[in-house]
Amino acid sequence: MTDEPIAPRRHRVVIIGSGFGGLFAAKHLKRADVDVTLIAKTTHHLFQPLLYQVATGILSVGEIAPATRIILRKNKNAEVLLGDVAGIDLENKTVTSKLLDWERVTPFDSLIVAAGAQQSYFGNDHFEAFAPGMKTVDDALELRGRILGAFEAAEVTTSEAERKRRLTFVVVGAGPTGVEVVGQIAELADRTLAGAFRTIDPTEARVILVEAAPAVLPPMGPKLGLKAQRRLERIGVEVKLNTMVTDVDYMGLTVKEDGEEKRIECAVKVWSAGVQASPLGKLIAEQSDGTEVDRAGRVIVEPDLTVKGHPNVFVIGDLMSVPGVPGMAQGAIQGAVYATKQIKSELKGSAGERKPFKYLNKGSMATVSRFSAVCQIGKIEFGGFLAWLAWLGLHLYYLVGSRNRIVAVYSWFITFLGRGRSQLAITERWVFARRAIEESREQSAQKAIG
Amino acid sequence: MTDEPIAPRRHRVVIIGSGFGGLFAAKHLKRADVDVTLIAKTTHHLFQPLLYQVATGILSVGEIAPATRIILRKNKNAEVLLGDVAGIDLENKTVTSKLLDWERVTPFDSLIVAAGAQQSYFGNDHFEAFAPGMKTVDDALELRGRILGAFEAAEVTTSEAERKRRLTFVVVGAGPTGVEVVGQIAELADRTLAGAFRTIDPTEARVILVEAAPAVLPPMGPKLGLKAQRRLERIGVEVKLNTMVTDVDYMGLTVKEDGEEKRIECAVKVWSAGVQASPLGKLIAEQSDGTEVDRAGRVIVEPDLTVKGHPNVFVIGDLMSVPGVPGMAQGAIQGAVYATKQIKSELKGSAGERKPFKYLNKGSMATVSRFSAVCQIGKIEFGGFLAWLAWLGLHLYYLVGSRNRIVAVYSWFITFLGRGRSQLAITERWVFARRAIEESREQSAQKAIG
Repeated sequence: MTDEPIAPRRHRVVIIGSGFGGLFAAKHLKRADVDVTLIAKTTHHLFQPLLYQVATGILSVGEIAPATRIILRKNKNAEVLLGDVAGIDLENKTVTSKLLDWERVTPFDSLIVAAGAQQSYFGNDHFEAFAPGMKTVDDALELRGRILGAFEAAEVTTSEAERKRRLTFVVVGAGPTGVEVVGQIAELADRTLAGAFRTIDPTEARVILVEAAPAVLPPMGPKLGLKAQRRLERIGVEVKLNTMVTDVDYMGLTVKEDGEEKRIECAVKVWSAGVQASPLGKLIAEQSDGTEVDRAGRVIVEPDLTVKGHPNVFVIGDLMSVPGVPGMAQGAIQGAVYATKQIKSELKGSAGERKPFKYLNKGSMATVSRFSAVCQIGKIEFGGFLAWLAWLGLHLYYLVGSRNRIVAVYSWFITFLGRGRSQLAITERWVFARRAIEESREQSAQKAIG
Repeated sequence: MTDEPIAPRRHRVVIIGSGFGGLFAAKHLKRADVDVTLIAKTTHHLFQPLLYQVATGILSVGEIAPATRIILRKNKNAEVLLGDVAGIDLENKTVTSKLLDWERVTPFDSLIVAAGAQQSYFGNDHFEAFAPGMKTVDDALELRGRILGAFEAAEVTTSEAERKRRLTFVVVGAGPTGVEVVGQIAELADRTLAGAFRTIDPTEARVILVEAAPAVLPPMGPKLGLKAQRRLERIGVEVKLNTMVTDVDYMGLTVKEDGEEKRIECAVKVWSAGVQASPLGKLIAEQSDGTEVDRAGRVIVEPDLTVKGHPNVFVIGDLMSVPGVPGMAQGAIQGAVYATKQIKSELKGSAGERKPFKYLNKGSMATVSRFSAVCQIGKIEFGGFLAWLAWLGLHLYYLVGSRNRIVAVYSWFITFLGRGRSQLAITERWVFARRAIEESREQSAQKAIG
């Protein structure tokens, strides 16, 4: 026994994830009397809405992926840990994370889980080797290598069929990411690469958008969807609606179009057809009586974004399922603000009953091509140049760091007013052994299933 | 038999390599009445002197690696082919290159071989898995991941010995690249990362430069070498001269210092100790009676940079061995200008006997840290801020593309006047499986030897 007084321990908040949800949660706790631990499996905060510009050679990785710990350097109450979360124990209030040979158990009083989502192949995980998604920096660099590499490979082949295959690009899924990446592949071929080859004509590349639903950008409604579709078609994109992908392999993909199976021979396939929430969602739901996950693995949270029986455990961002809240930056940021507000006001003792989370829909948008976007704010819908200007302003506002803003504007100036792209360099890894790598990956995925 | 007149065929020049030698050769043939084929195994022209800034998070890849075919888009007489050169036949005047399943045989009338050099491990190729070099874009991104990843890994370990090991960085070789990268690792730790961690203090990182010779920057002479060494020591770098590396493994390296074997436990090792010319050098020498390669595999060329018996085959850049010409950009560019001049004037029929190649030494320089460089122009030697300004001006002048110049200046402004670095993002590939990947690579290298 000792007579020394025990120093009152600070309230400990653990945040999982460094996306919009996790980063904004940490930022909003800057002046709170708490200790924050942010655990993430990347060292950067990824500005996911511009990832397609990394994949298509417009922006560099650094511009959209600043280091999380540098952003939070002045948040003296926050520590940032690189690690893979291996366990969450709601009962004992601990998070276990791993990095290399090291394992750490971090206790929490409040937990904010913002672990996000990854690409979903709807049970066909072996598609991934041939049709990577667009979720991480690694994905984007991989796709940049594949897209630019396909033009190089087309330039050198002597087989006409193979040349056509290498110049065919298919994007699966016509959500915002799919629309944006397909538009940029078309503009890359038509503008940036035009005249840079001697055997092929890059402007003859076939760029195809495949979507199972009957419309482009389904959540934005038929009017804007049609507008986006028309614009895509005008810049040369073939839009195939009501078309399901039934198989993907190295040589191309098989689709079901109006009930009929068809082959599309193509070198580059991009998958942006659906998302699957982080497995941490299930891990949490299993420990909470009466909390379920939805089909995409997202946690169906209480009105205060917590899980049943654990008012100190918030699930936000792409990992939470709340009717009417889309899996976009706005939803994650508002969730982060809401959760940290509850924590802060309850610590001050000033809180009564929690008011339920209310999502303020600030609208949604997607760029189709240079100078053209579609935009929906409440009941207002518009497209074209004005929507593109709105897109420009909004994305600049949310990019982290003034240096990144300046360089991004400058890069856009080059690409959209001119036709240059600053980041066309690809690494050597893929160029010479692509097929072997893809197929060995697919085999290990198949093994994992079987 | 046909009566149609045969159109006079244009003189065909094949260039191998897209570095300074290859790119400048293609550029200098822009207005010549020849057909140019440039074959390279990367799609970009690499501005190698700034590669260390990619490795240490200052510049993005795009800034120093513009796409070769975009640079040469307006050279209507030039085609650019991605491919690995698998054969050169001096007798039949053909170059065979491969890409994926495709092989092409390109005939030439004149050949300019500028295939460059790679890192040399002096027969210990299994070192490479643990101590990558600094020759390609892949190398630089690999090192960026290792350097920044080591700080992250140090932050999370609970073992004091392991923390120290992860915070120890060793650069092997004190040539310009070694000096520049070691200086930037020190400044990264002391300035950019200071205050961004909670458990470790990045400014306590141990940064070591190991050199077998008795001086830093041996070719620049004792005075500038000492100047650079003093400056490195002032920013916290330990300089170990007369020190040979005898072994490298995952945990660190073994050195022989003053005849005594010592261990340095360290996570990050960078190899910049020597170069080995492309194997194409040997391939050419074998086909030319009386032409030899030197110890580093470089072709000992005739006074006109050709090989004996083949006045149409020029070897330039890091692949050529000419006494007094260092393996630097200047040598490669001057070789390209000389070779293309011979080709052009002989085509015009205006040439007499070839005058031997004369290298104009425009000087050499190396940056040690921000605001400090060493510079040698003829007999003039100077160091410090003035040399740094000279470095700045010269590198800007040679960077390709005005966009890259503007962004580079802006990035330097951020890094050298401020302390930020724009490109701290690392890919996920290395973070979680580093040891396994390194060791499996080393094993395959060992197997290749045994």
